[in-house]
Amino acid sequence: MLTSPGTLVYIGPETELKTRIKKIQYNEKVFSESVVKSLIECVPGERSEGLITWLNVDGIHQTSLIEKLGTLYELHPLLLEDVVNTEHKPKIELYDSGHLFVTLKMLHIDSELPLSISAEHVSFVLGHNYLISFQEELSDDIFTSVLARLKASVGKTRKNGADYLMFALMDVVIDNYFIILEKLGDQLDLAEDQVIRGSKHFTLADLYALKREITLVRRFIWPVRDIINQLIREDNPLVSKKSVPYYRDLYDHVVQMIDTIDSYRELLASLADVHLSTMSNRMNAVMKTLTIFSAIFMPLTFIVGVYGMNFDNMPELHFHYGYFYTWALMLLVTVGMVFYFKWRRWF
Amino acid sequence: MLTSPGTLVYIGPETELKTRIKKIQYNEKVFSESVVKSLIECVPGERSEGLITWLNVDGIHQTSLIEKLGTLYELHPLLLEDVVNTEHKPKIELYDSGHLFVTLKMLHIDSELPLSISAEHVSFVLGHNYLISFQEELSDDIFTSVLARLKASVGKTRKNGADYLMFALMDVVIDNYFIILEKLGDQLDLAEDQVIRGSKHFTLADLYALKREITLVRRFIWPVRDIINQLIREDNPLVSKKSVPYYRDLYDHVVQMIDTIDSYRELLASLADVHLSTMSNRMNAVMKTLTIFSAIFMPLTFIVGVYGMNFDNMPELHFHYGYFYTWALMLLVTVGMVFYFKWRRWF
Amino acid sequence: MLTSPGTLVYIGPETELKTRIKKIQYNEKVFSESVVKSLIECVPGERSEGLITWLNVDGIHQTSLIEKLGTLYELHPLLLEDVVNTEHKPKIELYDSGHLFVTLKMLHIDSELPLSISAEHVSFVLGHNYLISFQEELSDDIFTSVLARLKASVGKTRKNGADYLMFALMDVVIDNYFIILEKLGDQLDLAEDQVIRGSKHFTLADLYALKREITLVRRFIWPVRDIINQLIREDNPLVSKKSVPYYRDLYDHVVQMIDTIDSYRELLASLADVHLSTMSNRMNAVMKTLTIFSAIFMPLTFIVGVYGMNFDNMPELHFHYGYFYTWALMLLVTVGMVFYFKWRRWF
Amino acid sequence: MLTSPGTLVYIGPETELKTRIKKIQYNEKVFSESVVKSLIECVPGERSEGLITWLNVDGIHQTSLIEKLGTLYELHPLLLEDVVNTEHKPKIELYDSGHLFVTLKMLHIDSELPLSISAEHVSFVLGHNYLISFQEELSDDIFTSVLARLKASVGKTRKNGADYLMFALMDVVIDNYFIILEKLGDQLDLAEDQVIRGSKHFTLADLYALKREITLVRRFIWPVRDIINQLIREDNPLVSKKSVPYYRDLYDHVVQMIDTIDSYRELLASLADVHLSTMSNRMNAVMKTLTIFSAIFMPLTFIVGVYGMNFDNMPELHFHYGYFYTWALMLLVTVGMVFYFKWRRWF
Amino acid sequence: MLTSPGTLVYIGPETELKTRIKKIQYNEKVFSESVVKSLIECVPGERSEGLITWLNVDGIHQTSLIEKLGTLYELHPLLLEDVVNTEHKPKIELYDSGHLFVTLKMLHIDSELPLSISAEHVSFVLGHNYLISFQEELSDDIFTSVLARLKASVGKTRKNGADYLMFALMDVVIDNYFIILEKLGDQLDLAEDQVIRGSKHFTLADLYALKREITLVRRFIWPVRDIINQLIREDNPLVSKKSVPYYRDLYDHVVQMIDTIDSYRELLASLADVHLSTMSNRMNAVMKTLTIFSAIFMPLTFIVGVYGMNFDNMPELHFHYGYFYTWALMLLVTVGMVFYFKWRRWF
Repeated sequence: MLTSPGTLVYIGPETELKTRIKKIQYNEKVFSESVVKSLIECVPGERSEGLITWLNVDGIHQTSLIEKLGTLYELHPLLLEDVVNTEHKPKIELYDSGHLFVTLKMLHIDSELPLSISAEHVSFVLGHNYLISFQEELSDDIFTSVLARLKASVGKTRKNGADYLMFALMDVVIDNYFIILEKLGDQLDLAEDQVIRGSKHFTLADLYALKREITLVRRFIWPVRDIINQLIREDNPLVSKKSVPYYRDLYDHVVQMIDTIDSYRELLASLADVHLSTMSNRMNAVMKTLTIFSAIFMPLTFIVGVYGMNFDNMPELHFHYGYFYTWALMLLVTVGMVFYFKWRRWF
Repeated sequence: MLTSPGTLVYIGPETELKTRIKKIQYNEKVFSESVVKSLIECVPGERSEGLITWLNVDGIHQTSLIEKLGTLYELHPLLLEDVVNTEHKPKIELYDSGHLFVTLKMLHIDSELPLSISAEHVSFVLGHNYLISFQEELSDDIFTSVLARLKASVGKTRKNGADYLMFALMDVVIDNYFIILEKLGDQLDLAEDQVIRGSKHFTLADLYALKREITLVRRFIWPVRDIINQLIREDNPLVSKKSVPYYRDLYDHVVQMIDTIDSYRELLASLADVHLSTMSNRMNAVMKTLTIFSAIFMPLTFIVGVYGMNFDNMPELHFHYGYFYTWALMLLVTVGMVFYFKWRRWF
Repeated sequence: MLTSPGTLVYIGPETELKTRIKKIQYNEKVFSESVVKSLIECVPGERSEGLITWLNVDGIHQTSLIEKLGTLYELHPLLLEDVVNTEHKPKIELYDSGHLFVTLKMLHIDSELPLSISAEHVSFVLGHNYLISFQEELSDDIFTSVLARLKASVGKTRKNGADYLMFALMDVVIDNYFIILEKLGDQLDLAEDQVIRGSKHFTLADLYALKREITLVRRFIWPVRDIINQLIREDNPLVSKKSVPYYRDLYDHVVQMIDTIDSYRELLASLADVHLSTMSNRMNAVMKTLTIFSAIFMPLTFIVGVYGMNFDNMPELHFHYGYFYTWALMLLVTVGMVFYFKWRRWF
Repeated sequence: MLTSPGTLVYIGPETELKTRIKKIQYNEKVFSESVVKSLIECVPGERSEGLITWLNVDGIHQTSLIEKLGTLYELHPLLLEDVVNTEHKPKIELYDSGHLFVTLKMLHIDSELPLSISAEHVSFVLGHNYLISFQEELSDDIFTSVLARLKASVGKTRKNGADYLMFALMDVVIDNYFIILEKLGDQLDLAEDQVIRGSKHFTLADLYALKREITLVRRFIWPVRDIINQLIREDNPLVSKKSVPYYRDLYDHVVQMIDTIDSYRELLASLADVHLSTMSNRMNAVMKTLTIFSAIFMPLTFIVGVYGMNFDNMPELHFHYGYFYTWALMLLVTVGMVFYFKWRRWF
Repeated sequence: MLTSPGTLVYIGPETELKTRIKKIQYNEKVFSESVVKSLIECVPGERSEGLITWLNVDGIHQTSLIEKLGTLYELHPLLLEDVVNTEHKPKIELYDSGHLFVTLKMLHIDSELPLSISAEHVSFVLGHNYLISFQEELSDDIFTSVLARLKASVGKTRKNGADYLMFALMDVVIDNYFIILEKLGDQLDLAEDQVIRGSKHFTLADLYALKREITLVRRFIWPVRDIINQLIREDNPLVSKKSVPYYRDLYDHVVQMIDTIDSYRELLASLADVHLSTMSNRMNAVMKTLTIFSAIFMPLTFIVGVYGMNFDNMPELHFHYGYFYTWALMLLVTVGMVFYFKWRRWF
């Protein structure tokens, strides 16, 4: 049955683990970190003045919990729908109520050969002095490096606001794309090598599989450009002027990635042509072999057939050296044919 | 004969059923539903204050009835023309007289194998506190779920205006596209599977048929993006600010659908290449088989032909083991050929 | 020799008939129609107040006459050049002197099989309360239906201004495109049918011919979109607000046509691929037949060649059932081959 | 060595002739024409009031002379660089100092078969009441027709300013493109004819040569559209309102040419496909011929081989009509094969 | 491990040489040049009034040194990151602090056959009266020609500001692209020649290698257009009005290069088609040869087979001229076949 719009439906894989919420509060001097036991702790009113609050929600399958959290922060039901809809493509949405919503894909490599890439649904809600991050899976938290930097008070994160924190987290997600692209590039190099060498175990279906993965990655990275572009637009009240250069740097990275992906796609298309031409070349060689054999043996077989006829009156048969003359003739025909094909440059 | 512009011509399939008009009136507290017996009941003046009126017109073949309804609501003749012109593509039109017109296609699957999709012409006229919806066919009302929600007073529909009602109805139509896309995706997967496996019953004509359906669906979905875009433009007086997020959500869905369709189209093109390359591969194999047979048997046939000649003086014929030597020679030739082709990597 | 710019050169086919000018004057109440005998009758000053004047010029080969008419209405020499230049593509031009110029192509089907389409050059000069229409050919006036409607006082034409009259005439021209598109669609269906069935009388040259016609039609329809777009722009002083919905309707039609043409072009390209793949398939079948024949008869011919040798000492020749054993062997080889090809799925 | 920017380098073919400068001065009443002997005569100060001065510079290889002329008219060194750089593509540049610079290509047909097109570098410097035109080659002055019209006081040139003069000269250059396009169209028609007929002397290399020429011409015409567009922009102080319709007409011509070129390119691509399909068809025919021959003669050769065996016990050999029965059998096989291929529709 | 954003990572090839910084100070009258021994000498405060300071940094692998320099000039950490990130594509960035950053690629030809191109990372920081240039490699300073011109007081560089100096350096980099493009053009001509001649040593893999290089160069040149475009935008405070024409000239060059590259790409694609068609042609010729041989010798072999049969009753065998009649028949068949193929135009 079709559900009413704004109804939360989690459609990702079922997982039995409970959603885990971590609450981090910090400014340049203070830092506290705790695992949230009851949603009460998340109440925004409790946030002390001058502190940045980061709620990191691990797991998005408990839709009721997400819904309650949404009520606490006055999030629009459609926003929450996008948080749990793991099939939603990357997007940004600005809300009048003073927060913005960003959803991205964290890419993971599931298997190397053949390359298989899976996408984890990651969302951010950025408010004036808080950030809520949602991750699809429970295992292997991708944001630990940022948390470690926060705790250790190194880097610029502690000195900056929630907008810089979101940048740091998005940076982790997007830098990871470079690794994926490198893998794709390796596979492309491998395919290129096989195509150029004319490997027989290589088929166009291999290129097709590669293309599918590239198309997939492209669909996830492409909208990110637009997302960052909207974040650094002058009228955005939630991203401070100081953070803009960092987002612009991220923007540059994404543009460079899209550029790389597009060049991959183009090379893939050319490779397919080279492969087809190699196959065509090979066919040519086969046909030439066949033709050379036929052109040499057909006349010879005809000649020996002639002297296998049983006519009463066949003078050549009675020549003393007739048989040897015939061999000479056949040799002549063979040599003639070989020269003919040499002249036609078939060897 | 060409008709004067603004003349209503219904060009859909003939149906004998009478057009059925349902009149629903509601606000947050009240709800009434009745089947309209005479057009008098539709008169807008009769609408009570503070109520939303929804006229649902089932069947658009009785053009005279449509025309009268149009006069009651002061609809432009060209608008009515578009209501009954089932070949018109999706569009939006804003009228100065304070209403807007939207026409969409409801897609139905007629048969699964081969996939055949038909389109039902659905139109909306949205006024300040009324909505008129027109559906092409009488059977199987697609809006029943919305009507049920209205009646049961669940969901947000009852609390919102006519603009939200139109959103709810458009949502039903557009969500249905996902089902169509899924079917197309299934067919594409099937085709992909057959192409990769190199199935012999698969031809490019199958891909072509699939492409036709995808092209059709694309032509119906593509303009919807623009329609919603116009609905959520700031200067639109008929869509309230509260409804905009819902339409924006719908917009996201349509963009994602178009994205999906475009990736289908691209994959289709690649599949065609893979298929052609498979066929070319197969031809290569056939040619190699032929060449190997010829290259082995032509020399052999020549050899036996030699000793079938009838020359008086052929010393070999009188060797005691001549026949067996010949067999040895032929074995040698065969083995040589096999090794040659092994070396050329033809097996 | 190259002529000075602004010199009128009629380059269409020569016709001996004299240019015929019809003068129609009307408003909601009055209607008069006369064939112009002398250009004096066309003098704009003579137009009575409150009347719309329509001059319909049939034939544009008498450039001197066109030139004189141009002087009467203060038309720019370059405008007149475009009126008589039958190779000029559709365009719109707004003149400061208070009139605008539109030129279109009326499409005619010259022959059905193979489809051949010819274009008639039609131009309009729209002033405040007059319209001058120019048609290339004398026979078969395409505007008779509009004239009839004017005369009979039916339709909206009589109640509206010269801008609505131009709409009515353009509507006749553009509605006619649908007929052309339908014919092209029929031909495409025919081609599709032949390609899918794999008809042998079908070649890519047929698709090419169809493509030429479609390209031609596209070049004539494409600019019309822009023309109408300029007509309905808000700052256009010659098209009244009341006529805009009609032009917008026309605009919708043209967009739909361009859409259709583009989908035709795409299908044509796919059809070409399907055709090439069918041909490739057929070649495959031919090669398989050849290979099967060769693979069966080459070994057999070798065997009978063996026992055609004339060695003194060939024991098998003297076996009593040797001949029959040989047949058995040959049968075995044949059956083996057939099974081999069955196993390779060549049948 | 790389030269400092703004250094004049003439890189066209060397020519021994001296640069020839013609000075023409005119207004509606007066006209004078003289060959400049010393650069002093070109001094702008010498220009009488109310006269248009046209300096026509024939030959651009004497860079020192061009440089001096540039100093007289206060032309930017980079402008002069573009005047003598014959490889520079068409462009327009507006200078604050009150003049503008346009450079175009005059196209010449060097040889017809194969078509070879060369480009002459033509530049204009348009000031308030003067025009300087530069032509690459000395022979065959392309502007004589305009000069003749000026002298004869016919046409509008004498009544208008320097901007109209530049229009007249550009018109000569651009009208000439039509001739080039016609030649290209003729060659395309020829190629089309050969491809459709399936001429054997036609190869894809012919289409490629044609494509090269079309690409060349396109690169020269394409920027002209933008040049004229900038000339007719409202804020251009050097082109009077009166001349704008003429430039707009030129603009239309260029757009139509680009349109034509693009349709040529598209047809070329389709022709290549038709050609490849024709070749594929021919290969099919060849293969069928081979297969039919093989399928008929292989069984026959086998049959006669059977009765060429030397077994002691071969009953058929001793039948009185054995030989004739064999012929009957062979006839049967042949007829059978022919019917088989008829049925498979190979003839 | 992923590093915090703004951390300098040099990823180019390791080089043992020390970074060398040259400090040049000049105005129209004075010129001084020195190798910087301590970073203190670079302190901007030390710059005398009215002098342009150019710091040329050779080598970017000593990130700590770059970092210190950055602190002196108040450069953003992300700017420094882009200076040392040799994989970053060309870009421009304007900083509020009153300087702008440009990074380009200097292209070098590593080997000619096969053509291999490497890119050197070159960056500029342009301030009000200073310019810092960074080059990746230590050997072979590309800016010596500009330095020589500065020293010799020739050219316009000494009279203009730091913006003109940056233009002069960028001009060196970009002019060098022409040489690269020429080399690519030569290779393309070579490939074209081989394809048209139908050279057998040519494969599509050669075109592919060429395409890779062209794609690489394109990716480096393409963004330069946008960079210069931003430099000459009116609101740019660092580029003076006097320098704009020079940058505009550079812009023209880049546009022309991109144009050239695009035409190369298009020709490459066409060449691939011509090559495939040549191969297909050759296959056709091979098949024809085979078919002609088969069609001539199969009937002959059959005929001699007939008279090799051993039937008791074969009247022809006993005809006195039977053998010679057979030869006559075979001659007839051969001549017939030859005429048949002549008629089918296979020769």
